[in-house]
Amino acid sequence: MENNETEISKLGEFGLIDRLTKDFPLRNAETKKGVGDDAAILTFGDKDVLVTTDLLLEGIHFDLRYVPLKHLGYKAAIVNFSDIYAMNGTPKQITVSLGVSSRFTVEHLDAIYDGIRTACDLYGVDLVGGDTSASVTGLVISITCIGVASPDDVVRRDGAKPTDIICVSGDLGAAFMGLQLLERENSVAAGQKDFQPDFAGKEYILERQLKPEARKDIIELLRKEGIKPTSMMDVSDGLSSELLHICKDSGVGCRVYEDKIPIDYQTALMAEEFNMNLVTAAMNGGEDYELLFTVPLTDHEKIEKLKGVNMIGYVTKPELGCAMVTRDGNELPIKAQGWNAFEH
Amino acid sequence: MENNETEISKLGEFGLIDRLTKDFPLRNAETKKGVGDDAAILTFGDKDVLVTTDLLLEGIHFDLRYVPLKHLGYKAAIVNFSDIYAMNGTPKQITVSLGVSSRFTVEHLDAIYDGIRTACDLYGVDLVGGDTSASVTGLVISITCIGVASPDDVVRRDGAKPTDIICVSGDLGAAFMGLQLLERENSVAAGQKDFQPDFAGKEYILERQLKPEARKDIIELLRKEGIKPTSMMDVSDGLSSELLHICKDSGVGCRVYEDKIPIDYQTALMAEEFNMNLVTAAMNGGEDYELLFTVPLTDHEKIEKLKGVNMIGYVTKPELGCAMVTRDGNELPIKAQGWNAFEH
Repeated sequence: MENNETEISKLGEFGLIDRLTKDFPLRNAETKKGVGDDAAILTFGDKDVLVTTDLLLEGIHFDLRYVPLKHLGYKAAIVNFSDIYAMNGTPKQITVSLGVSSRFTVEHLDAIYDGIRTACDLYGVDLVGGDTSASVTGLVISITCIGVASPDDVVRRDGAKPTDIICVSGDLGAAFMGLQLLERENSVAAGQKDFQPDFAGKEYILERQLKPEARKDIIELLRKEGIKPTSMMDVSDGLSSELLHICKDSGVGCRVYEDKIPIDYQTALMAEEFNMNLVTAAMNGGEDYELLFTVPLTDHEKIEKLKGVNMIGYVTKPELGCAMVTRDGNELPIKAQGWNAFEH
Repeated sequence: MENNETEISKLGEFGLIDRLTKDFPLRNAETKKGVGDDAAILTFGDKDVLVTTDLLLEGIHFDLRYVPLKHLGYKAAIVNFSDIYAMNGTPKQITVSLGVSSRFTVEHLDAIYDGIRTACDLYGVDLVGGDTSASVTGLVISITCIGVASPDDVVRRDGAKPTDIICVSGDLGAAFMGLQLLERENSVAAGQKDFQPDFAGKEYILERQLKPEARKDIIELLRKEGIKPTSMMDVSDGLSSELLHICKDSGVGCRVYEDKIPIDYQTALMAEEFNMNLVTAAMNGGEDYELLFTVPLTDHEKIEKLKGVNMIGYVTKPELGCAMVTRDGNELPIKAQGWNAFEH
C-alpha cells in the first residue's frame, strides 16, 4: 500500500458503500430507489420490482468444516428472500452464480442446488439464471433475487415517525449462539478421530444458524390483519445496527427496552455456558433474519394480538438519539456493533 | 474425491448448468423464460424485464498483473449490458457485488467503480445496489443487470429458420489476440526492471481485450431500419460455440463461409506473429461481445447496406448439421471449442 492510500477497514462496510456509490446518478424513470435499502425499487408497468443481491464467500461468510453444502444452498437463497419480504414484497425469481475450485465434485454442487431447490419450492421462487465458473480460490456464491409488490405496499426504511411502536418478529441472538457452538465443537474435534459433537438440547440454536427461515408468515399475517408498517428491514447484521439504519434513514430516535428483547431459552443457556452477555449477543449477533418494523401507535391493539411479534420500544424525535432502556431504568446509547466483514 | 464422484470438468460448463438446473420448475406467471438464453425473461405489467448475471473471478477471468482496475470495472459492466442488447432489450440497472482481499485499498476500489461509472454513464444505466465484502482469497466481481423491452421486441436464441441469413457485427478474434499479446509481454517482463512493453500498432486488439464495448449502436441501427432478428446472442465464448447454441435451440443447421468471417488487419498480423491459425482464433477466441443474429432472407438488401454488419452464412435444415465452408469449398463441421473455465 502506498502511504497516501486508505485501508478498507477504516471506512467500514457502510462507509465504503457510501463512498463508492455516491457519484452514481439515477437517470432512468424505471429506477425509484437505488442503493440504501434491503432491496432496490424499480418500476415496470404498474408493478414495483424489487432487486436484492448477496455475495457469500468461503472463509468469510461460511466455513465448510461445519456447514453442510445443502444447508449452505438453502441459507444462501433464504437470506435473499428475507430482503424482499423486508420490503413487504414477494420473492419471485433468483439467479445463482457459483465459483467452485477443483476440490469440488459435481455431487457437491448437486448438494448446494438441492438446498436452493428446497428453498425455492417452499417459498415459491423460480431459478431463472446464473453463471458457473471455476475458482482458483474458495467457493463463491452470488445470488440475486427479484421480487414484486404493488407500489402502495412497498415498505422502506425511511418511514418511521415519532410515537410509532417498534416491533420485532421471533427471537434474537439464537443464530449467533448456534455459530459459537459450532465453532467450539469444531475446535474440540480438531485432531480427534471419531469425535461426536454433543448437540442434544441445542437443536434450536443450531437450526437458526444452519437453516434460517425468511419471515414470509409474518408478512402474510400483517397483511391479513390490515397492518402496514411505516418502516421495515430484516435483522441480518444485528438489532443494534438495524435500529440505527431505520432511525438514520427516517430522521428519528428510538427507545427499546432491554427486558422486551425476545430471547429463546436455548440462547440464554448457551450464553451462560459461554459466559457471554446475553443482551449483547441478542442485540449484535446478527443472522437472525427476523423482521424489524415500526407501526403507528394506533395499531397497538392489533399488534398485541399477533403471535410471533413483540413490541420492544417506540420511535422518538431525533434529538433524543437511540438508546436501550436497561432493566434498572438507565439509558445506554445504541451503537452499531454489527458484524463487519472487513475486520476479519 | 470419492470413487463414485464426478469431476466437474467432465461435464463442461453447459453440461453442468443443464444438470444443476433441470429440476427447477418455473411456477410463477411472472417468469417467461428461465435458464438458457443471454438473459432470463420476466414479465411485470406490460413490460418484459430481462435479467442477466456474470461472475468474474481473479485468476480465472482476469489477471491483475496486466488488467488495470478501471478497465476491469468497465468491462465487468459492459459484458452484462451486452447480454441485454443480445435480447434486443435496453439495460437499465445493475447491482455490483465485490469481494476484496486485504491487499486492496479504498483507492483500488475507487478505480474499479470509476470504470463501472464510465460504463453506466455511456450506456445510461443506473447502479441500484450490491454487496461489498472482504475476501480471504482473490478479487470477486458479481454483476447483475436488469433490462427492459416490449414483449414484441424480445429476440431469443430459438427463432432461427432455414434460409435465414446469419449476420455478425464488427470483427472477431481481436480480443483473443489482444490477450495473447498481453500475456506474452507480461511473461517477457517478468524479472526485468523498467521493462516497457511495445504495443505500438497494436492498440486496436488491446482495446478489444481491455475495453470492449456492447453493441448498443447495432441494436439501434437494426431498429431504425425496421429489422427484427429471428434469433440473436452475443459472442462471448467464441463464434463456433454461439452458432451451435442458436442452431441447437432453434432446431436448425448452418453454413458459414470461412472467407466471410470478419477479421481486423491487426488481428491477422498478430496471429501470424504468434504462428496461430487465424480462422481458429476468430471462430473460438471469444470475448468479442459482437452480436450474432439471423434475419429472414427477405431482409437481404436492408442488411447489405448496414455499416458494421457482415453476412457470414445461412441457416439450414437440422439434418445438414453445422459446418464452415472453407476457402477451397470443403465443409468442416463446427465444434464447440469455446472457452471452458473448468479446464484451467
